[in-house]
Amino acid sequence: MPSKQPVAIVFDTFGSVVDWRSSLIADLSGYAASRGVTADWAALVDAWRAAYHPSMDRVRKGELPWTRLDDLHRASLNRLVSDFGIQGLSEDDLVHINLGWHRLHPWPDALPGLTRLKSRFIIGPLSNGNVSLLLNMAKFAGIPWDMIFGSDLFGHFKPDPETYLGVARLLDLRPDQVMMAAAHNSDLAAARSCGLLTAFFPRPAEYGPHQKRDYAADQDWDIVATDIQDMASKLGV
Amino acid sequence: MPSKQPVAIVFDTFGSVVDWRSSLIADLSGYAASRGVTADWAALVDAWRAAYHPSMDRVRKGELPWTRLDDLHRASLNRLVSDFGIQGLSEDDLVHINLGWHRLHPWPDALPGLTRLKSRFIIGPLSNGNVSLLLNMAKFAGIPWDMIFGSDLFGHFKPDPETYLGVARLLDLRPDQVMMAAAHNSDLAAARSCGLLTAFFPRPAEYGPHQKRDYAADQDWDIVATDIQDMASKLGV
Repeated sequence: MPSKQPVAIVFDTFGSVVDWRSSLIADLSGYAASRGVTADWAALVDAWRAAYHPSMDRVRKGELPWTRLDDLHRASLNRLVSDFGIQGLSEDDLVHINLGWHRLHPWPDALPGLTRLKSRFIIGPLSNGNVSLLLNMAKFAGIPWDMIFGSDLFGHFKPDPETYLGVARLLDLRPDQVMMAAAHNSDLAAARSCGLLTAFFPRPAEYGPHQKRDYAADQDWDIVATDIQDMASKLGV
Repeated sequence: MPSKQPVAIVFDTFGSVVDWRSSLIADLSGYAASRGVTADWAALVDAWRAAYHPSMDRVRKGELPWTRLDDLHRASLNRLVSDFGIQGLSEDDLVHINLGWHRLHPWPDALPGLTRLKSRFIIGPLSNGNVSLLLNMAKFAGIPWDMIFGSDLFGHFKPDPETYLGVARLLDLRPDQVMMAAAHNSDLAAARSCGLLTAFFPRPAEYGPHQKRDYAADQDWDIVATDIQDMASKLGV
């Protein structure tokens, strides 16, 4: 067990808690089939995710005013539907598809692991998703969060320090009483630079055949686990 | 069942979900006895609560900058300990006593009623308490909130419209998709003026022998129930 125990643990969500790639490919393929619309949905999902960081970076650099992730997703989707030459989607279809990010399924260890952690710690997502996205996802998937730390609470996306330090401020805790848990080393590096504790577990299938990094911890994070169940064990719950 | 069903229901907390008066009197009396400090704790609790609205009104009127309820409570407590001539409390004692507001017990119908409502609706507190207060209370008492709408998310106390409309904004809902539930008619009147749906249930013992109002609904609220269990029944869950 690590020497320092957190009071609260916040989790990166997309990729760390939920499997966005398999969920979206299945969700979109099924929906499109029911609407008689064909496309390479796996390729579209990969391209959609590839647009995620560049779109947030435009906000982080001040090129765009604060914009919720739902709206960044929708702008990217509009462009990709055009780029992919997809025909026959109505506005209602596009709204439904964009809300696919609210209907993501957890990795198998996530719900049992989080349920164990919730028994001793405050748990919540600290995600670039907006509150409504994360809350709808929690209701859809049964994720037992205590509190939803959406990026719209802070008006900032990770890795801006306002997000990590904003959690500590809202919880009235010191940064070293909050642990950031993620499958992404870069997220943990930013959290550590703000004084948070850190926990890593890999998700080697997050990007399917396109995974390029984050197979292992690249720093001596406070906890290095195989998944969220193992993380709970390493925290003694 | 009412014709309009909400997507989310937010609850006033102090008095409506938790019994602050009995909880605090028991908590403070027991703690003070263990510390060998005697005082009329029931009178102190009543005076503490009486200081609640005037202290928030100083913030609402701009006489004070934004101040979390924990800090308003502490300032009132310092004054009352002096007014009551209470001797022998250390700084640690005062911190512990002030956090008594984080250790309030729910009314008997609250947990089963909220658990039923959570199965169909997003549920959360919309309280003048800060996020850390409400979250610690939820962990202490086992309240199954989906999201914590503390006043510090908005930088405003109820009945400022920024609170009611802030919930709708964070949930990406129209105001009439959000229901405010409370044992206080004035809270519901403010919520209705912002376009929210409303639900009333009385808590005739909230102020003990000092209750003066809110024995019954004083408007045709969308739901009028006897308690949160009955409210769940009236919403068909």
